[in-house]
Amino acid sequence: MKEVRVNEALLASIKGYEKRKAYVSPFAFQPERTIEEAREFKGQVRRTKVLSSLEEAIRKSGLKDGMTISFHHHFRDGDKVLPMVMEVIATMGFKDLRVAASSFTGAHDCMVDYIEKGVVTRIESSGLRGKLAQAISNGVLASPAVIRSHGGRARAIVEGDLKIDVAFLGVPSSDCMGNANGVVGKSVCGSLGYAMVDAQYAKKVVLITDTLVEYPNHPISIPQTQVDFVVEVEEIGDPNGIMSGATRFTKNPKELLIAKNVVKAMIASGYFVDGFSMQTGSGGAALAVTRFIKEEMLKRGISCSYALGGITAAFASLLEEGLVKKIFDVQDFDLGGVASITKNALHQEISADFYASPFNKSAAVNKLDFVVLSALEIDRDFNVNVISGSNGVIRAASGGHSDAAACAKMSIIVAPLLRGRLPIVIDRVTTVVTPGETVDVLVTELGVTVNPLRPDLKANFEKAGMELIEMDSLIERAKFLAGEPKKAEFSDEVVAVVEYRDGSILDVIRKIK
Amino acid sequence: MKEVRVNEALLASIKGYEKRKAYVSPFAFQPERTIEEAREFKGQVRRTKVLSSLEEAIRKSGLKDGMTISFHHHFRDGDKVLPMVMEVIATMGFKDLRVAASSFTGAHDCMVDYIEKGVVTRIESSGLRGKLAQAISNGVLASPAVIRSHGGRARAIVEGDLKIDVAFLGVPSSDCMGNANGVVGKSVCGSLGYAMVDAQYAKKVVLITDTLVEYPNHPISIPQTQVDFVVEVEEIGDPNGIMSGATRFTKNPKELLIAKNVVKAMIASGYFVDGFSMQTGSGGAALAVTRFIKEEMLKRGISCSYALGGITAAFASLLEEGLVKKIFDVQDFDLGGVASITKNALHQEISADFYASPFNKSAAVNKLDFVVLSALEIDRDFNVNVISGSNGVIRAASGGHSDAAACAKMSIIVAPLLRGRLPIVIDRVTTVVTPGETVDVLVTELGVTVNPLRPDLKANFEKAGMELIEMDSLIERAKFLAGEPKKAEFSDEVVAVVEYRDGSILDVIRKIK
Repeated sequence: MKEVRVNEALLASIKGYEKRKAYVSPFAFQPERTIEEAREFKGQVRRTKVLSSLEEAIRKSGLKDGMTISFHHHFRDGDKVLPMVMEVIATMGFKDLRVAASSFTGAHDCMVDYIEKGVVTRIESSGLRGKLAQAISNGVLASPAVIRSHGGRARAIVEGDLKIDVAFLGVPSSDCMGNANGVVGKSVCGSLGYAMVDAQYAKKVVLITDTLVEYPNHPISIPQTQVDFVVEVEEIGDPNGIMSGATRFTKNPKELLIAKNVVKAMIASGYFVDGFSMQTGSGGAALAVTRFIKEEMLKRGISCSYALGGITAAFASLLEEGLVKKIFDVQDFDLGGVASITKNALHQEISADFYASPFNKSAAVNKLDFVVLSALEIDRDFNVNVISGSNGVIRAASGGHSDAAACAKMSIIVAPLLRGRLPIVIDRVTTVVTPGETVDVLVTELGVTVNPLRPDLKANFEKAGMELIEMDSLIERAKFLAGEPKKAEFSDEVVAVVEYRDGSILDVIRKIK
Repeated sequence: MKEVRVNEALLASIKGYEKRKAYVSPFAFQPERTIEEAREFKGQVRRTKVLSSLEEAIRKSGLKDGMTISFHHHFRDGDKVLPMVMEVIATMGFKDLRVAASSFTGAHDCMVDYIEKGVVTRIESSGLRGKLAQAISNGVLASPAVIRSHGGRARAIVEGDLKIDVAFLGVPSSDCMGNANGVVGKSVCGSLGYAMVDAQYAKKVVLITDTLVEYPNHPISIPQTQVDFVVEVEEIGDPNGIMSGATRFTKNPKELLIAKNVVKAMIASGYFVDGFSMQTGSGGAALAVTRFIKEEMLKRGISCSYALGGITAAFASLLEEGLVKKIFDVQDFDLGGVASITKNALHQEISADFYASPFNKSAAVNKLDFVVLSALEIDRDFNVNVISGSNGVIRAASGGHSDAAACAKMSIIVAPLLRGRLPIVIDRVTTVVTPGETVDVLVTELGVTVNPLRPDLKANFEKAGMELIEMDSLIERAKFLAGEPKKAEFSDEVVAVVEYRDGSILDVIRKIK
């Protein structure tokens, strides 16, 4: 420039510009949040974000005691990122951290130790499993853990209820600027749907990868615009733990019977028309539904407009056969899902926000016709528990359960009447994760039970000649077979809070006696 | 639910939960911003956002006098969306609106009328052309127009400097929930890069399309999570005006000479190595550079890691040949670009934020090695004018000029010494859009001129045996050929403000006499 074109006097003379700044030099003004790493370049842009160690990344992220850090769980039981990062954080002497993971899995037992040492004092997650879940049920945390659905977690992050200071995101591949995906690399996980929300909203984002590729990476699930640092490590996940392997078709006669009943109900509902949509899980009955429904689609010459949710090989092959037109994939449940998202453009990765947030302008769940969901317990009011065992101990995950149930035209809970000697259909669930008024149909091996809130569905089922079974009869039958279930015994202390997808508090979990 | 699990007393007993709400019903709590349209469903999610008319969409958007609306310019001279929407808005009687378009084109002459009638009182844009530009230069606006670069506009929107109340976004195709793209439909435009930022940040988003497709649309450039309403209309754009047709190779000897000099400078710079990156425009010299550089890549067996910017058929064919590994596309300049983004996954659509924002964690321009940019004028201090003519009248666009210049390792301005009898290399540009300290090299038909701020480049050029020409000599030569240029005459009144990409004020444009 040299010549001064604009000065304070000139700005003062233009209405509305009295407080504006005149140009100084190309990089004179930067947002407060700009990292030191970038400022060090004094007017030059950074051309790499790769740091030499996790410790360096943690230091440069500005992490402080009391802050909130986050992780995703796309590597599931094979995750090596959380243990690796937490070890460095603990060694560096941090205390009083809140750890907000999209879920905790069997790979995260180490968390108990960090809680006991005071490194971690607060936990927020969709799921809690293994030793961590047991320890929390035993009261190891001073503040209650927060359980959110996948859509609820996205909402909380977007709305600022859950502010993440530093997100540590394991990614199967990244380039030096932070363009990352889950389909290229040594340890692929497919969709990075949960991580996408953290990357977008966390103040600082550290990517951890074992596959650093040339710039620019392709495809881009997490863009460089959201990433502060990239750290290369030996291994981010154990491929055997990441995926449970190819999903297998169940031979369990009870599950097959349930699946057949589900398909009957879907057909009779009136929603099973060309262009219908569905979400099913990865359980035995759910997978069997996927197979049976395929036969019905072929028979009628109709197809599914989109399949949603955690994706399996079963849906991937329906996509390839053209019976499903599009897959929205927030998470892959098996290697077949991963292979499909890698090669098929119609198998589309979506963020947890797109999947299920109740507060955006419409999530993918909003257009669902059918969702097939499992249950640890379901009660007289159709309330569903998917987080705690009948013994009161936390053991599973909220997931997208309540999100899909709230929005689908017909939400179907599949559950056996008993598991072993344990009644599943009971008077009162231990913990409510999905409110009964969002559950339309329960399918057990005894048949189809309709929520009285849906007389329209009941009428359709009856018109189709289906025999229905009342909730009262189911519970009676379960009691007859298993006796009155033993109630879990709790103390008064609240160890976890179950947040509904809209941020209201749905239930609490208490310390077990 | 029925049974109340959580009440105020319980919440009051849990530390930190004293002010939280207990669950009421599945859709009891919604964010303030939820549209009436959605509330009307009373607990059911909306399953379509299609409204029957623009008027209905405008009414439901909550538009009020004094608000800010936005448009994108991907349809360029063929845009029918802005005139269509503005006509309805004017008929409905709105006043005092601020119109923030990504750019105004020759299709937007109607704006003059709306300004004169008081419907529109403020204008913000990257570019101003035709009658609108002339009228603003004549002083039709009460407040100065704001000129921003593409990266600067994205920054202003993200940072909240430019708050958009309602974005009216023409999209070649959309489904009933608002999943939209620019590659399917009657009037395709390719990348929707500028519109993506508006969709993400505007309070209300109205999509206007002439091709309503079945749910879910594919691919998704603008997601349903960001869209409030969809309106189907007869025609959103004139395909002949959208694209200038296939780009042609120049036969102008001056442009060819300039292009050859550019390529010499690129090779001698030291940056022309395997994996280099580049952005070039659609001008004759720039396109010729693309062709010549291809020959040099083939000769050396190297390839370009990514090409950036407004994309033409020339880059698309380099991508197909594997000489360019990836294209980042914020806007398509011809039908060859559109065809390529439609079929080639490595031709990736990016938002204006990803392209060039100075305040995100790194934009695509940050990794540029070379950028080739044109100029209306360039001066002794290497300041470049791309917005106003030598007669002082606004006539063009800021575009990504200053964004790319600031970040590329070598920013190259291509310009003839004269255009007709008009000197282009002059003492002082009429308006500064790109500050001279971000311009490294000027290439004219007389040869290569290096900014004294880059002695390193000068040394490399000299080592390669290149003859360089000093800026002083260029200006002298221009004066010798064309005489002392006639100065445009201005009054004191400021009619437009040129904002630098970081939000500081770089220059002003005054009313012409």
